[in-house]
Amino acid sequence: MNKKSTLDPVFYPENGAIVGASENPIKLGYQALLAATSGGHKGKVFPISPSLAGKEIMGIKAYGSIEEIPEDAQLMVFAIPHNRILDALKSAAKKGAKGVVIFAGGFREVGDEGKALQREVKETADRLGIKIIGPNCIGTVNTHHGINATFAQPLSLVKKGGVSVVSQSGGTGSAIITTMADNNVGLSKFVSIGNRVNLDFAELIDYLGDDDDTDVICLFIEGLDDGRAFIKSAKSASKKKPIIVYQAGFTETTRRLSLSHTGSMSASKDIYMAAYRQAGVLFVNDYEELVDTAKILSAFSDFPVPRLSPGAKPGVSIFTHTAGPALIVAETVENGGGAIPDFTKESKEKIVKFAPQFTVPTNPLDMFAHAWFMTDMYLEAADLALSQSNIHIACSCYSGGFEMGMKFPAAKYAEIGKKYNKPAVVCLMAPYAHFEERAAADDAGAPTFNSPHKAGKAIANMIRWWQMKNRP
Amino acid sequence: MNKKSTLDPVFYPENGAIVGASENPIKLGYQALLAATSGGHKGKVFPISPSLAGKEIMGIKAYGSIEEIPEDAQLMVFAIPHNRILDALKSAAKKGAKGVVIFAGGFREVGDEGKALQREVKETADRLGIKIIGPNCIGTVNTHHGINATFAQPLSLVKKGGVSVVSQSGGTGSAIITTMADNNVGLSKFVSIGNRVNLDFAELIDYLGDDDDTDVICLFIEGLDDGRAFIKSAKSASKKKPIIVYQAGFTETTRRLSLSHTGSMSASKDIYMAAYRQAGVLFVNDYEELVDTAKILSAFSDFPVPRLSPGAKPGVSIFTHTAGPALIVAETVENGGGAIPDFTKESKEKIVKFAPQFTVPTNPLDMFAHAWFMTDMYLEAADLALSQSNIHIACSCYSGGFEMGMKFPAAKYAEIGKKYNKPAVVCLMAPYAHFEERAAADDAGAPTFNSPHKAGKAIANMIRWWQMKNRP
Repeated sequence: MNKKSTLDPVFYPENGAIVGASENPIKLGYQALLAATSGGHKGKVFPISPSLAGKEIMGIKAYGSIEEIPEDAQLMVFAIPHNRILDALKSAAKKGAKGVVIFAGGFREVGDEGKALQREVKETADRLGIKIIGPNCIGTVNTHHGINATFAQPLSLVKKGGVSVVSQSGGTGSAIITTMADNNVGLSKFVSIGNRVNLDFAELIDYLGDDDDTDVICLFIEGLDDGRAFIKSAKSASKKKPIIVYQAGFTETTRRLSLSHTGSMSASKDIYMAAYRQAGVLFVNDYEELVDTAKILSAFSDFPVPRLSPGAKPGVSIFTHTAGPALIVAETVENGGGAIPDFTKESKEKIVKFAPQFTVPTNPLDMFAHAWFMTDMYLEAADLALSQSNIHIACSCYSGGFEMGMKFPAAKYAEIGKKYNKPAVVCLMAPYAHFEERAAADDAGAPTFNSPHKAGKAIANMIRWWQMKNRP
Repeated sequence: MNKKSTLDPVFYPENGAIVGASENPIKLGYQALLAATSGGHKGKVFPISPSLAGKEIMGIKAYGSIEEIPEDAQLMVFAIPHNRILDALKSAAKKGAKGVVIFAGGFREVGDEGKALQREVKETADRLGIKIIGPNCIGTVNTHHGINATFAQPLSLVKKGGVSVVSQSGGTGSAIITTMADNNVGLSKFVSIGNRVNLDFAELIDYLGDDDDTDVICLFIEGLDDGRAFIKSAKSASKKKPIIVYQAGFTETTRRLSLSHTGSMSASKDIYMAAYRQAGVLFVNDYEELVDTAKILSAFSDFPVPRLSPGAKPGVSIFTHTAGPALIVAETVENGGGAIPDFTKESKEKIVKFAPQFTVPTNPLDMFAHAWFMTDMYLEAADLALSQSNIHIACSCYSGGFEMGMKFPAAKYAEIGKKYNKPAVVCLMAPYAHFEERAAADDAGAPTFNSPHKAGKAIANMIRWWQMKNRP
């Protein structure tokens, strides 16, 4: 949590309110209350609905109007149509609202009338000191304060962590969060910014850059209204923590769609790429890569970025019991700008002592099926490799132990990484039926990727980040 | 099943045997028996172990030697060390073995001595009329005959289907199968070919090309020994069904690793790409893409490939309740060689009648959150779009209905595709906790992809396949 930001009450409210709460499960006002009560928030949440005044919804007393709630609520969710927003904002201000989530569409994305309404909402909100999340959005989450101010209760299932996500598309944002949940990546804050009435990327980047609960900032962008403000904020925040950007909408058809979706103009890809380089952000090509890159950068956010001499490529060591996947990691890393340095003569002499017969002591190191069972070999290999100054990262490839009961020794492996202050990751190939095996390794500090291509890409992107940090 | 191929008894054996069966769960001979008995095979499987003769393992009577088994076994799994293979082969031949899986390493990948042994195994097997799967492999699966002749019982969890996989790497092969299971893609046959003693890609491609249980052939290649034979077989089989290739090992380090792994030399990427073009195979860049591409091509293997005039791009229509993901699908399709044609004037007039207020009736078609609840809009839109001659594919983007109970109307949607003989796919974004929702749509004939990037890539690759088929 930041100190004294105007956004603090939005992300860390004492109480909340659902304006337009409903008893009907297919209404957003029902789902929003379900979501709000599933996040673990310690404060109160007030359901507001004229037709349910005095009754209980989900065991919580409902009020007929905002004015009737007995305490202030800093964050309110408006599950009401666009034509009732202005009045509700005025009532909300009287009850201490500092942040309001607006789900409804019908604003600048729908033509002149909508633009006029959006302008009026902006003026009103600015005058009342309220920050608007949306409209035309799915809301916001802050796992560090138990807040799920969306209409998607399953977003509460994602674990608490250091990755914050700001998305211009609610659908894509929600899909990013569920992809994080599927890959055991911890979320800090999520904001679906929708039409950006008075809260845009720049201000959120400033806030998240200073937020102690955020290690990595992820952005899904369709098009920027104010590129200059974005660059200024990103340039400053990327000095403190990585910013990863995924953007879609560069083809002719998609630029047209993007315009009608959130009303934002898209410039050419070249212009955006130049801006992102200037801003020091890491650009990725799909949101699976966004999630994997955030996972590795967040897992090792406490480690120092290695100092690299100009032109030097960071070195990656790869260990395996099955050569094919190691081949894929190595190729992906090399294509992504990393090196696969050989082991020193001394290391090689030590490797042949613990590795099985026929082992060729080179990097990548294939220790055959023996290492699948006798997993200590991974620890010995990682310790030797990371002791070399030209090796900066360890990546172990391991097939899930299935029903045989073997487990990758993740906790000890992570300790070796910590001893050298160098990232140690695992390409842990297992079906989702073995998710617990992956999650245990993640939680022990050895982040996992369930395919060698994903592991290699994540490593290559961490290397890109390091190289950016090493530029004068 | 083919008629009268020498490989029929390998993939459709009457009985099987596990040579080197064990009671110790961390032995491959235990896991192999577990796998063999989990596939649903109707025939017998004989555990063979000198120390367990006459006892029961997993409730099955064990025999002291191959010679002692009471019936012939056409497929045998050798879970024994490399130095016992030759003798076992001779015994196996006496009991009708036509196929033998060899897990052990210690052959051509380990130097001159291993090369000599491999040569001897090849000569013996050829003389005895036995096809060797391996050595240095994880075995084979045939879901259409209940066969799991690997040491990985979880490979039995993948559903039966039309996609066959041949992998030079056991670890990568196993990871491909578990990725198929995670994405509900049906497997036909899996072969981990390892060192390829007397069974290589070419012969398997010939066999699978004629196999009625196989719609799509997937290959993971590290390097080919006999490029000419490969091209000849692939050229012939790709006339009958798609062949998808993923290959790793093109960087300097990985070429070295590949050599030590399976002993195969890798040529440059350019040479391989030229060969693959000549052979009519579809090259992909990672195995997630391999699985997604196989999924879409297998799902629509009964549909005719559309005739395209030279230079014409197949058209894709996209429907959504949330614009961001549609943007990603459109961009991926356009970058991959597809078009996003606009709707006709007549269609537009019809769209504005059923779509919600403010809908802009263009392709991609955003029908706002209304369509999330009132899913019939997807059906009306797909029917209109697919009736256009310049639109060949429908893609619907849908967020899982979470706890609200909405479901994408997959069965009716698939029917519309069938009516026009045009593929209708769903980008169904949901966490793995909602896997059943995806599987139900898949099984109804509307294959799902859980991210817009994956959906777009799969569509683009199907389009690439169509374009290859349209070349004179």
